[in-house]
Amino acid sequence: MRATVLHAPRDVRVEDRPVPTLQHPTDAVIRTVVTCVCGSDLWDYRGVNEVAGPTPGGHEYVGIVEEVGSEVTGIKPGQLVVGSFFASDNTCPHCENGYQTNCVHREFVGGAQAEYVRVPLADGTLVHVPGDVADAYLPSLLACSDVMGTGWYAAVAAQVQPGHTVVVVGDGAVGLCAVIAAREMGAERIIAMSRHEPRQKLAREFGATDIVAERGDEGVARVKELTGGIGADAVLECVGTSHSMRQSLNSTRPGGNVGFVGVPHGVRIDGEELFFSHVALRGGPAPVRAFLPDLVQRVLDGRIDPGKVFDLELPLEQAAEGYKAMDERRAVKALLRP
Amino acid sequence: MRATVLHAPRDVRVEDRPVPTLQHPTDAVIRTVVTCVCGSDLWDYRGVNEVAGPTPGGHEYVGIVEEVGSEVTGIKPGQLVVGSFFASDNTCPHCENGYQTNCVHREFVGGAQAEYVRVPLADGTLVHVPGDVADAYLPSLLACSDVMGTGWYAAVAAQVQPGHTVVVVGDGAVGLCAVIAAREMGAERIIAMSRHEPRQKLAREFGATDIVAERGDEGVARVKELTGGIGADAVLECVGTSHSMRQSLNSTRPGGNVGFVGVPHGVRIDGEELFFSHVALRGGPAPVRAFLPDLVQRVLDGRIDPGKVFDLELPLEQAAEGYKAMDERRAVKALLRP
Repeated sequence: MRATVLHAPRDVRVEDRPVPTLQHPTDAVIRTVVTCVCGSDLWDYRGVNEVAGPTPGGHEYVGIVEEVGSEVTGIKPGQLVVGSFFASDNTCPHCENGYQTNCVHREFVGGAQAEYVRVPLADGTLVHVPGDVADAYLPSLLACSDVMGTGWYAAVAAQVQPGHTVVVVGDGAVGLCAVIAAREMGAERIIAMSRHEPRQKLAREFGATDIVAERGDEGVARVKELTGGIGADAVLECVGTSHSMRQSLNSTRPGGNVGFVGVPHGVRIDGEELFFSHVALRGGPAPVRAFLPDLVQRVLDGRIDPGKVFDLELPLEQAAEGYKAMDERRAVKALLRP
Repeated sequence: MRATVLHAPRDVRVEDRPVPTLQHPTDAVIRTVVTCVCGSDLWDYRGVNEVAGPTPGGHEYVGIVEEVGSEVTGIKPGQLVVGSFFASDNTCPHCENGYQTNCVHREFVGGAQAEYVRVPLADGTLVHVPGDVADAYLPSLLACSDVMGTGWYAAVAAQVQPGHTVVVVGDGAVGLCAVIAAREMGAERIIAMSRHEPRQKLAREFGATDIVAERGDEGVARVKELTGGIGADAVLECVGTSHSMRQSLNSTRPGGNVGFVGVPHGVRIDGEELFFSHVALRGGPAPVRAFLPDLVQRVLDGRIDPGKVFDLELPLEQAAEGYKAMDERRAVKALLRP
C-alpha cells in the first residue's frame, strides 16, 4: 500500500509499505477513505521534535472496516468508522471518567496517512457512522477524529458555559474548531485571536463575534478592553508555546479557566503567578473518543461543519505538498485521499 | 495600644503603637477580641520572605466594632464581627464572581495582632455575627477569618463533590480545616497526609478516613495503593513548596483537580507534565469573604469546630512564644487574647 513516511525535517515521502494486519484479537484493520495532515505533525516536520528514524505519518482517519479480530464485537467489516488518535478500551476507570486518552491500555494510532491502518482496541476506539453517509460529510467527520474533538475538549476543560465570554488563542484548525465548540456550548461572545484574513473569515463563519489581531501583551490589553477590564471567563489555548500560554493566562478573569490543548513546547508556569491570578488550568491530549458519538451526530444533523478547515485537498500521493502548504501557512489543513 | 511587631527573623516583640483611626469614610475600627498567629506569618518569621523594616503582625481577627466611617451602613458599633485578611468592596465584578481576594479595591488587613485594628471597606469586608455568642465559639469564628476559609476554598478550587476521594497535603491548621471542608462537601474518603501523631488525631476527628505518613514519591505510591491505582478525585495542597505541589499533582487522577492554597515559594510547573496528567489546577489567596456567612452559620449551628486547631492560647503579651511554638512545631496554631 501507499503511505507517507517522514525521513528527516521537511522530507516527507509517499512510499510502498506492507498492508497492516491484525496483531491482537481486539484489533481492526480499516481501509482509509480520508485522512489528513495535523498541525502537530509539523513539530516533527520542522525538526522541533527529534525524529529517530523514518516514521509513518498521520493519526486522523475515516475509513471502512476491512477486518476485525476475534474479540471485536461492536464493529463489523463494511462499516464506516471514525476513531481517535489514541486507542482506548473505553471501559477502564479513566475511560469511564471521560479521559480515554489516559486509558490504562491506551496506544497511539500512527501511520494513518496510508491506504490501510490498524486500529487497536477497535471496540473501544472506533465509532460507527450510521446510515448512507454522503461524501460531503466526510471532511467534517474526519475533523472529528482530532481537531474538532480537540477544540471541543479545550472548551470542556475551560468549562465554557452559556453566556460566557470566550477567547480562542490560535487560529489553526484546532483553534477554529474551538470557536465552533464555544458557540455550541452557548458562549455569548467569542473573541478569536487571528491576524490572517482567511482564518478570521472562517472564525467569524464558525461563530466568532470579535477578532483580535494583536498578540502578547497587546493582545491581552485588547481582550481586557473588550471585556470592560475584567478578562474572559474562558480561554482556549490552541498553540502550545510559552507566549501563547502567557497570553492565555493573562487574558482570563480571576476565577476563569484556561483549557490548553496545544502540546506544550518549553512551557513553564510560575506557581506564584498562577496562584495570584485565581485562574484554573486544565490541558491534555483531548479524549476525543468521549465526544465522538455526539460530534458525529452534530455533523450528520448539519449543526456543525468543521470540515471547512480543510482548505486544501490532495491525493495521498501528493502528501508532501500538503505538509509544505501547511508549514508555509498557505493552507490551514490538508485533506488527503488515498 | 499593645501590638506585635516583627523586627527581624525570629524577633517578634509586643510594643506600644498608636490606636488606629478611621482614614476613609468606608473604614471601621474594631476592638480585637481574639487574634492569632498564621502559618504564613512564619515565612516572614523564618526569614524566607524578606522583611523591609519593623512590621506589625497578624491578619486574623474577631472583634467588636468600635467606630465606623460616615459611609458605612451595614456594620454598627457594638456588633461582633469577623472579616477576611483582604478587605474587599464585595460589589465589583470580581467580588460578584466570588473572588473577593481579587477585588479591584482589595487591600490587605495587616496588624491584627493588636488591641485595635482598622478594617477598610467595612461594609464589604466584615460579617456581623448575630445573637449573644458564647465565648466557646470564639476560636472557631476566628478560624473562619482565614484558615477555615482557606481550607474551604481549597476544596472549592479542587471541585470536591459528594462521594469523592480527597487527599489533603499539609497538616497545618489550613490542611486540618481542609479536612473539615472536604467532609462538609460530602467526600466519601479523606486521606490526610501527616506524620505528626497529634495532628493525625485531629485530622481523624475532623473527618479523615485514612492517614498517610509517607511523603513525596512514597506518599504518592501510598495514595495510588489506597485508590486502586487510580489516584484521588481532588487534592488539596496546603503547603506551598515544590515538593508538596509535585506530590499533589502526582496523587491526582486524570480529570481530577488540585486546589492549591499554600502560598507558592519557588514552585515551577512543567507545562508538558501538567498537560499529559489531565489534572486541573486552581489556587490563590482564598476569597474567605465569599464563604464567611455560611461558615459562621455552620459554627453557630455546631456543625463545624475549626477552633480546635488552636492548641495554644496566650495573652497577646506573649505573642513571641506563640510564634516560637509554631516555628518549632510544638503548636499547630496559637490564639492570642489582647
